[in-house]
Amino acid sequence: MQAEIITIGDEILIGQIVDSNSAFISKELNKIGVSVYQITSVQDDREHILKSLKEAGERSSVVIITGGLGPTKDDVTKHALCEFFEDELVRDDSVLGHIEELFRKYITTPISDLNREQAMVPSNATVLHNEFGTAPGLWMKKGKTAYASLPGVPYEMRNLIIKSVLPKIIEDYERPHIVHKTIMTYGMGESAVAEKLEDWENNLPSFIKFAYLPNLGSVRLRLSAKGTDKEALMAGIEEQVKKLYPLIGDIIYGEEEEDGRVEKQIGTLLTDKKMSLATAESFTGGSIAERITAVPGASNYFKGSIVCYATEMKVKLLDVPQELIDKHSVVSEEVAVAMANNVKKKLETDFAIATTGNAGPTKGDSDAEVGTVYIGISTPKATFAQKFVMGKHRERVVKKSVNKAFELLYKEILNF
Amino acid sequence: MQAEIITIGDEILIGQIVDSNSAFISKELNKIGVSVYQITSVQDDREHILKSLKEAGERSSVVIITGGLGPTKDDVTKHALCEFFEDELVRDDSVLGHIEELFRKYITTPISDLNREQAMVPSNATVLHNEFGTAPGLWMKKGKTAYASLPGVPYEMRNLIIKSVLPKIIEDYERPHIVHKTIMTYGMGESAVAEKLEDWENNLPSFIKFAYLPNLGSVRLRLSAKGTDKEALMAGIEEQVKKLYPLIGDIIYGEEEEDGRVEKQIGTLLTDKKMSLATAESFTGGSIAERITAVPGASNYFKGSIVCYATEMKVKLLDVPQELIDKHSVVSEEVAVAMANNVKKKLETDFAIATTGNAGPTKGDSDAEVGTVYIGISTPKATFAQKFVMGKHRERVVKKSVNKAFELLYKEILNF
Repeated sequence: MQAEIITIGDEILIGQIVDSNSAFISKELNKIGVSVYQITSVQDDREHILKSLKEAGERSSVVIITGGLGPTKDDVTKHALCEFFEDELVRDDSVLGHIEELFRKYITTPISDLNREQAMVPSNATVLHNEFGTAPGLWMKKGKTAYASLPGVPYEMRNLIIKSVLPKIIEDYERPHIVHKTIMTYGMGESAVAEKLEDWENNLPSFIKFAYLPNLGSVRLRLSAKGTDKEALMAGIEEQVKKLYPLIGDIIYGEEEEDGRVEKQIGTLLTDKKMSLATAESFTGGSIAERITAVPGASNYFKGSIVCYATEMKVKLLDVPQELIDKHSVVSEEVAVAMANNVKKKLETDFAIATTGNAGPTKGDSDAEVGTVYIGISTPKATFAQKFVMGKHRERVVKKSVNKAFELLYKEILNF
Repeated sequence: MQAEIITIGDEILIGQIVDSNSAFISKELNKIGVSVYQITSVQDDREHILKSLKEAGERSSVVIITGGLGPTKDDVTKHALCEFFEDELVRDDSVLGHIEELFRKYITTPISDLNREQAMVPSNATVLHNEFGTAPGLWMKKGKTAYASLPGVPYEMRNLIIKSVLPKIIEDYERPHIVHKTIMTYGMGESAVAEKLEDWENNLPSFIKFAYLPNLGSVRLRLSAKGTDKEALMAGIEEQVKKLYPLIGDIIYGEEEEDGRVEKQIGTLLTDKKMSLATAESFTGGSIAERITAVPGASNYFKGSIVCYATEMKVKLLDVPQELIDKHSVVSEEVAVAMANNVKKKLETDFAIATTGNAGPTKGDSDAEVGTVYIGISTPKATFAQKFVMGKHRERVVKKSVNKAFELLYKEILNF
């Protein structure tokens, strides 16, 4: 039982957008035991779409197609589907009613023929109700293979996957369970970790697959198992994870379940402990606050951030003494400590993160080399800052620093 | 002359990572006149990789492969390449020297046999020097088709594309020019725009392709042309763009060239005008500051942000009067105006953006429905706030609001 994904749209092939739909669909399919064999992105081109539909259907039992369902001329998916299924377009009155309702309620421009045309669907297709948009989802079968065609707009697609496509797959197909577990480590390179785990890896039972996922200073270790008995799979993985800890416990900082973002784990800890957090950000420019507040429920523990991008703002908004900056430079341990201390005090929180550094491309208000950063952490007991050299790539310097700040904070919160 | 991209890695097919490499590669190839016909993502599986290499090579002149070059067991790309090219792995001394140098300089753990093995390359491959990592890029030919195999780590891959792969393609292949231009509009739906443009679209010359890209309240219109005479292509597109303005000039807010992010355009304007910006963010939680500071050179005009996530912080950090909040609620036009005014004054800037709203999933410190937001804009002449209803989806509410805030600000800056 495997699936394929076909994403349709010139904008993908010219690199104008990143195809994030595929990752979402793959993750959701995995949760219900369906492996994704291949993801194929093709242009808005009838011949090419037909070829992909055919090839995917020969390999897999379920084919999920996104994109190319818009009302405008450049979208050709629906016509290609008709040709593939030797079908014709007919008007679906419930879809038309829904389109008219959306226009009545939310859209100020009058409904047009183009909009109404979106109610035309292949006569043999089952319509999947698209709550949030005018292009309906479609569910069609050819032999034993099911094809689901969905709009490419991410939130419409997601809603259709969760509410219509997954239930249909669950109803129609027998599926194994797939269980993943990811262990997060930091501070050691991929091959150094691999050497420590050589014996362990060689002795893994055959139903467990193992992979290394290196990313910006951390290496995630993924164990995957597939089979019919979910409990047994989970127990099998747990058994192996237990054996991991004596080998590399010192570099493990968490285990990733459903959603392994460390900021989410920080949120859970802070909520449980009824403790609070603030940030003072210089070169990270609000990135830390942004990641924290992307977690639903962040208002339970996150009070706010002072983004003091300009040096003068560190003095003005955070009361960092000008003399301290003059003496040690704005990119220094002392300034990071002062920022962490002061934002914690000012916002009356239990914990604080502070960042000061130079992300490049040019040197700023200090002599620090591009890539030099200090991350300050303040806890109810103490405040400290650490120096890191994060390379020359602006975007990476910021991302690595945000990750590092969360790691440092996470370890501290565990002590309270 | 067309190319294909094959991205390799189980982490893509289980949805653990979003494949952003493909978009980068596609964009860069387009710039040098190479169209991407298809993007295929496959598992770390020898048979599957072999099949994809063969099929892609039959269709396209250049095949770019990323991923699966790590030092650990789960990475099998190099072995698959050897089989495909009927070649064998031999040690490359310059690669080995580079790996040893990287370890001496940057890596604290000792070098291992696994690391040294990364210097083993197919004997007929041309090595592409990977400055930033231990896995070299490889350039191989089979018949007239060139295959480039690159590590999946984004910054290593990007550097190899720019410094090695593109120059090789330019040297080896005749290519047409591909020119894109994207016009950004807001405030009108895709089909309403399409109706206004119907005649214009029907009269487009055949060498110009046209597409609609709707996204969170804005619709981008993309014109693409492919041919041998770059100047003529650009002139042809310009001619059509000129005809667009009389039809929909009122909803156009910019043209997208190389990098069309509106925050970049704001940055260019502010730098030219020597004017400055600050933000006061509630439910956007630093997202606006993050997007602004992601633009290199933001320190020329961005002073900082007060992220007042908790209601009390609006009073404490931004001097919003408690009575104003009590009277109008924290999610109100009055509070957004006060935030914008006060942050502008406090940080001594020319412009300011402020946000207050409820992104959900539950109601916060106000009675405002989930999705209700106010965006405040302060300019050297005036301050105002507008109300928007952004739907129920937390992530979308934030993204739409950030986009809207930039649009509002952009239009204002044009007046100064």
